[in-house]
Amino acid sequence: MDLIKPIRSLIDMDTGVIENCDNIIERRLSDMRGMYADRETLRRLILQEDQVVYRVYEVKIPEEEGQLAYSTTILYPGKVGREYFMTKGHFHLRETAEIYFCLSGQGYLLTQNNQGEVHLVQMNSGVLGYIPPGWGHRTLNTGPEEFVFLAAYPADAGHNYRVIEEKGFAGIMVEEKGHPQLKSNPGYKKS
Amino acid sequence: MDLIKPIRSLIDMDTGVIENCDNIIERRLSDMRGMYADRETLRRLILQEDQVVYRVYEVKIPEEEGQLAYSTTILYPGKVGREYFMTKGHFHLRETAEIYFCLSGQGYLLTQNNQGEVHLVQMNSGVLGYIPPGWGHRTLNTGPEEFVFLAAYPADAGHNYRVIEEKGFAGIMVEEKGHPQLKSNPGYKKS
Repeated sequence: MDLIKPIRSLIDMDTGVIENCDNIIERRLSDMRGMYADRETLRRLILQEDQVVYRVYEVKIPEEEGQLAYSTTILYPGKVGREYFMTKGHFHLRETAEIYFCLSGQGYLLTQNNQGEVHLVQMNSGVLGYIPPGWGHRTLNTGPEEFVFLAAYPADAGHNYRVIEEKGFAGIMVEEKGHPQLKSNPGYKKS
Repeated sequence: MDLIKPIRSLIDMDTGVIENCDNIIERRLSDMRGMYADRETLRRLILQEDQVVYRVYEVKIPEEEGQLAYSTTILYPGKVGREYFMTKGHFHLRETAEIYFCLSGQGYLLTQNNQGEVHLVQMNSGVLGYIPPGWGHRTLNTGPEEFVFLAAYPADAGHNYRVIEEKGFAGIMVEEKGHPQLKSNPGYKKS
């Protein structure tokens, strides 16, 4: 393995922007088709404006054993019907953990294992959510501001988005009387 | 591998204290014997007060492949002669990376590979220092306040402190005219 040199990444603690990042991923509402119960509202919102739901700032690290990848995510406030703006969510291809460290805003880290067991971590500035190997994960912005977090994971973890695209998550987060509530997902397909 | 559940760790972004940590490591000047060029001053300081140089707040994660360990370090301001307060420093037993994310204060991440090549990363709030596999690492507080950072690394990385205890680091950081300067370590034993 060739030695790469240490890297200095400058992260804005409020906005989450990595000044010298290598790549920015942008996910719009049109990338979230099939992920919200209220399909009609999602369709209408995509036609109206197709808002950016989140951006990911990435630093390029070799996808090799022993390396750690890291990125920041800026998840914007918003809802599709009663469901909050969220990330697509994924499992890792290899059984590897991930760390989410909230820098600003507020939201939830929604995790789920292969048995469909759901575990929720409430996030705000200074909260580190530890996702052990084997738990799929997605984040949701339940506040009025941008929800910003730093993520770190083994660079060779691999990402499986397909499981969640096809089966959904067992739990969804909806607004009820002004507060976020965890509900069973009526569209969840158990394996 | 048994599935552990997700963990929520609450980190004070100013002080670095992890509210619900499992373990606190405390390193005093007397734990740093042999690591400073000015041995006479170190001996005198240990007799006077034997100050705490740094504290590490740890969360207990299984030391298994795929898991990530994390901790915060609070490195206090101070000097031994012209050299700044610093951590002992270590290499990993396995070739694994580590991430240091500065939450408050200021200092340096001093890294070194097995060929004795030195690489310095200036740290302040919002700077993430990436330590690739194969680089030994130590931090130094060059400011007037506590230097606080979050660390994350593969839980099965293993720590080798012996190499640095026996050979020292190729570089040292000393104060010159009020500013930190990187110098060659006169006591460094090349392999």
